[in-house]
Amino acid sequence: MLIGGIEAGGTKFVCAVGDENGKVLDKVSFPTGDPDATLAEAKAFFDQHDITALGVGTFGPVDLNRHSDTYGNILNTPKTKWRNYPLLKKFQADYSVPVYLDTDVNAACLGEYNYGVSRGVDSCLYITVGTGIGAGLVQDGKVFQGRNHSEMGHILVQKHEEDPFEGACPSHGSCIEGLASGTAIEKRYSKKGIELVDNEKVWEIEAYYLAQAIMNYFVVLQPEKIILGGGVMKQEKLYSMIRQQFMELLNGYLQVENVNELIVAPSLEDEQGVLGAIALCE
Amino acid sequence: MLIGGIEAGGTKFVCAVGDENGKVLDKVSFPTGDPDATLAEAKAFFDQHDITALGVGTFGPVDLNRHSDTYGNILNTPKTKWRNYPLLKKFQADYSVPVYLDTDVNAACLGEYNYGVSRGVDSCLYITVGTGIGAGLVQDGKVFQGRNHSEMGHILVQKHEEDPFEGACPSHGSCIEGLASGTAIEKRYSKKGIELVDNEKVWEIEAYYLAQAIMNYFVVLQPEKIILGGGVMKQEKLYSMIRQQFMELLNGYLQVENVNELIVAPSLEDEQGVLGAIALCE
Ligand SMILES: Nc1ncnc2c1ncn2[C@@H]1O[C@H](COP(=O)(O)OP(=O)(O)O)[C@@H](O)[C@H]1O
Ligand SMILES: Nc1ncnc2c1ncn2[C@@H]1O[C@H](COP(=O)(O)OP(=O)(O)O)[C@@H](O)[C@H]1O
Ligand SMILES: [Zn+2]
Ligand SMILES: [Zn+2]
Repeated sequence: MLIGGIEAGGTKFVCAVGDENGKVLDKVSFPTGDPDATLAEAKAFFDQHDITALGVGTFGPVDLNRHSDTYGNILNTPKTKWRNYPLLKKFQADYSVPVYLDTDVNAACLGEYNYGVSRGVDSCLYITVGTGIGAGLVQDGKVFQGRNHSEMGHILVQKHEEDPFEGACPSHGSCIEGLASGTAIEKRYSKKGIELVDNEKVWEIEAYYLAQAIMNYFVVLQPEKIILGGGVMKQEKLYSMIRQQFMELLNGYLQVENVNELIVAPSLEDEQGVLGAIALCE
Repeated sequence: MLIGGIEAGGTKFVCAVGDENGKVLDKVSFPTGDPDATLAEAKAFFDQHDITALGVGTFGPVDLNRHSDTYGNILNTPKTKWRNYPLLKKFQADYSVPVYLDTDVNAACLGEYNYGVSRGVDSCLYITVGTGIGAGLVQDGKVFQGRNHSEMGHILVQKHEEDPFEGACPSHGSCIEGLASGTAIEKRYSKKGIELVDNEKVWEIEAYYLAQAIMNYFVVLQPEKIILGGGVMKQEKLYSMIRQQFMELLNGYLQVENVNELIVAPSLEDEQGVLGAIALCE
């Protein structure tokens, strides 16, 4: 049985066919362009395969409220051509098989849960620290969702006393996305993260914010595993800095047997998104 | 069919028998004393009724991790006689019917979800602001739980600039329980909340903290309904103050059609706990 999966990112689309064991059999990737053209490119790939279902993990924000008229539409994205694009309806029109839609980060979480570093646990939180910050939770094998997908990137944190930056989020002065995303780093220092590798203060402040957000997610959701992915986490020293600050914030209130096992990197070499998209079809 | 429910509070026990429609047919309440004696008093009540199942919503912290050897035990409570008390095992030994255990606030949430103000919604968060602060989420009819029950009272918030209080939580300088519980109010002002009714600053600070916590719960969990209960919320003016500050913090990032419908008081006249305990058996 072949299943199709798409990681529909703001920068690139990854399309794959795989089986229910998480084995990718064919894969293609291309830049995200205009919506209809991009979907046509995906279709050309899947036309070569006999898939029985299609799963899509998409960039957002996207309307995932099943009671909504605009269910499955891309919402208010800075990518103007995609704004209000009826993504799910377009896929449903293009394919004769069932289509399952969720966010990119929820799909990545499900990928790691089914096939990666969080196999065997009951609950897993996946946080992506890239252009923005987003997170998804899989609990007992299912993606968690309230009235819509979660917006964990907009949780509020305490400002670092040496950080005068007013935040990069247009809505909130001190949400984690506004203070710790790749975009926030770039705006604060007028340099990209990769150019700031040797500036220790940058990563101290970054870890300070991420540890706070993780502390808050942890007490609310109590996941067994917390995966940190995304471009900014390529700075691998962040993992140990975040773990240490997280344990200081938690301050023994809840037991954590081994923080190195709790807070980890993704394990699927950038295939977690597309594997999770495939897993959405189960 | 009769079902038994117990709201096992730190101060008092409420025992009730009801039917599956949420109708309470008999009820009794008595102070919480030594563990064995208190359970015996509950047993004497239920011996008069022919119940088919027993649900218990208990004070905490309690071990609800099903993989744990101490599953169902009370954990490190200040009530020393109850510390490490194997609550669930004792109930199971006392009764020949199935016993279901959860936290008091999760039970209250389920009570309101099934029979109260959040009937008909898919997800509901119940926050209790009393001696401590706790919260529970019901999603699609089920109590949400990670590796253990959530500890939402220990989410971190930003200090109010006019609040020099160092917090009442022994672990965290700025968690919501440490800054906004009834205990925190008492410690900060050396007076009980009820004696501070006319001091506007008290309630401005209280609303400031609670609005922050709610903002964070909201972006993470996206509940359709947020119920605020507990002794401190008897100060009814808090509801409108919290709603206003919450909307300012959210700052239009997510759409809220009517905040007066989103953030509400409990509706079951202090029976939500025992009704929820009964509903745990479903
Ligand atoms: N090695 C690196 N070190 C620090 N920051 C990085 C690194 N690589 C990428 N980034 C930052 O991560 C962000 C992009 O994140 P990424 O996860 O790759 O993309 P996206 O979030 O758009 O899917 C950019 O802000 C970029 O500057
Ligand atoms: N009318 C009131 N106004 C303000 N605070 C109150 C009021 N009634 C009770 N409280 C406070 O609420 C706390 C007790 O909360 P409650 O929910 O009644 O009990 P518990 O949390 O122990 O179950 C105490 O700190 C008390 O001072
Ligand atoms: Zn924000
Ligand atoms: Zn605390």
